[in-house]
Amino acid sequence: MTRVLLATRNQKKLVELRRILAAEGVTGVEVIGLADVPEFPEAPETGATFEENAVAKAVDAAKATGLPAIADDSGIAVDALNGMPGVLSARWSGKHGDDQANLDLLLGQLADVPDERRGAAFVSASALVLPDGAETVVRGEWRGTVIREERGANGFGYDPIFVPEGETRTSAELSPEEKDADSHRGRALRLLLPAIRELAG
Amino acid sequence: MTRVLLATRNQKKLVELRRILAAEGVTGVEVIGLADVPEFPEAPETGATFEENAVAKAVDAAKATGLPAIADDSGIAVDALNGMPGVLSARWSGKHGDDQANLDLLLGQLADVPDERRGAAFVSASALVLPDGAETVVRGEWRGTVIREERGANGFGYDPIFVPEGETRTSAELSPEEKDADSHRGRALRLLLPAIRELAG
Repeated sequence: MTRVLLATRNQKKLVELRRILAAEGVTGVEVIGLADVPEFPEAPETGATFEENAVAKAVDAAKATGLPAIADDSGIAVDALNGMPGVLSARWSGKHGDDQANLDLLLGQLADVPDERRGAAFVSASALVLPDGAETVVRGEWRGTVIREERGANGFGYDPIFVPEGETRTSAELSPEEKDADSHRGRALRLLLPAIRELAG
Repeated sequence: MTRVLLATRNQKKLVELRRILAAEGVTGVEVIGLADVPEFPEAPETGATFEENAVAKAVDAAKATGLPAIADDSGIAVDALNGMPGVLSARWSGKHGDDQANLDLLLGQLADVPDERRGAAFVSASALVLPDGAETVVRGEWRGTVIREERGANGFGYDPIFVPEGETRTSAELSPEEKDADSHRGRALRLLLPAIRELAG
């Protein structure tokens, strides 16, 4: 059993990756989280792109632990905001990780933006970095629309105000399995599967 | 004396335009503000560009009053935010016109953005629309850097956190005359001068 570190403290992301690996029939890999390894200094996410942040996090984690490390950086890119909040999605309100404040701010900023200009994409970059330094980085996108009020209790972040293309429900109203099938993070993680399977080798 | 309507309720903008016209020796034009004309329904600023908003405001004002109307739309375009807050500068925090909330939010969003990526520009589009529908629209830009704390009591909006290129002071530490000489709005208004002089005929 090869241990792979997912460089996150977000339990939902850990569950999500395990669920995707199981659904895709990847065996021989045990995914652990940051809670399962000794603490190490984590650099702040100051990159200008999702890819930069994902790689930096995975490099730090692989160096500190000697394990193959996966890290992701995700966010919502709103057309009417020229692709922002982007890499600042988790601290859009100025307070890191306050989902409700971030979502409320985005709704307020878009209050006067008409329906035809409310397009957006959830974007996820995922990186796998091996202890020898080898890097793989991929990007998944999920297009949709930012609506005007919250709906749904699944998911996290901006899920309650994002209706994916071809859907009438928000991504917070989809089941975890439905979300995995289409979501930005699901797509990115599946793009990483060939590299993860090699580890299991 | 030709009366020209500056479509704003902001007394500081009115004073600024009068000061620039006087400094440039434009006589024969009396600038009045929205406080000096009967109220008319003002459309919300929902354009995707500064130019769109400036023209829409001036068109509304010229139609409603029969006067030549000047309108501007201005904001700060931050490189690390892909040019946002942009047209949403005055309501960046979700509350329209709350300068302090907008500025605090921008500082919070840029807290982890390193010094070398804190470039920005103040941008102003100014439109002159005549009662016969003729339109002139121009754009002025003022490059600089967003610093990490407020300084200075002149100006308004994001002035206390913007240091123009070639300066060590913020634009809120410049005198009104210094600001007029370089600022985005000063540049845009000077680009409108030929069209304004024609009115004075």
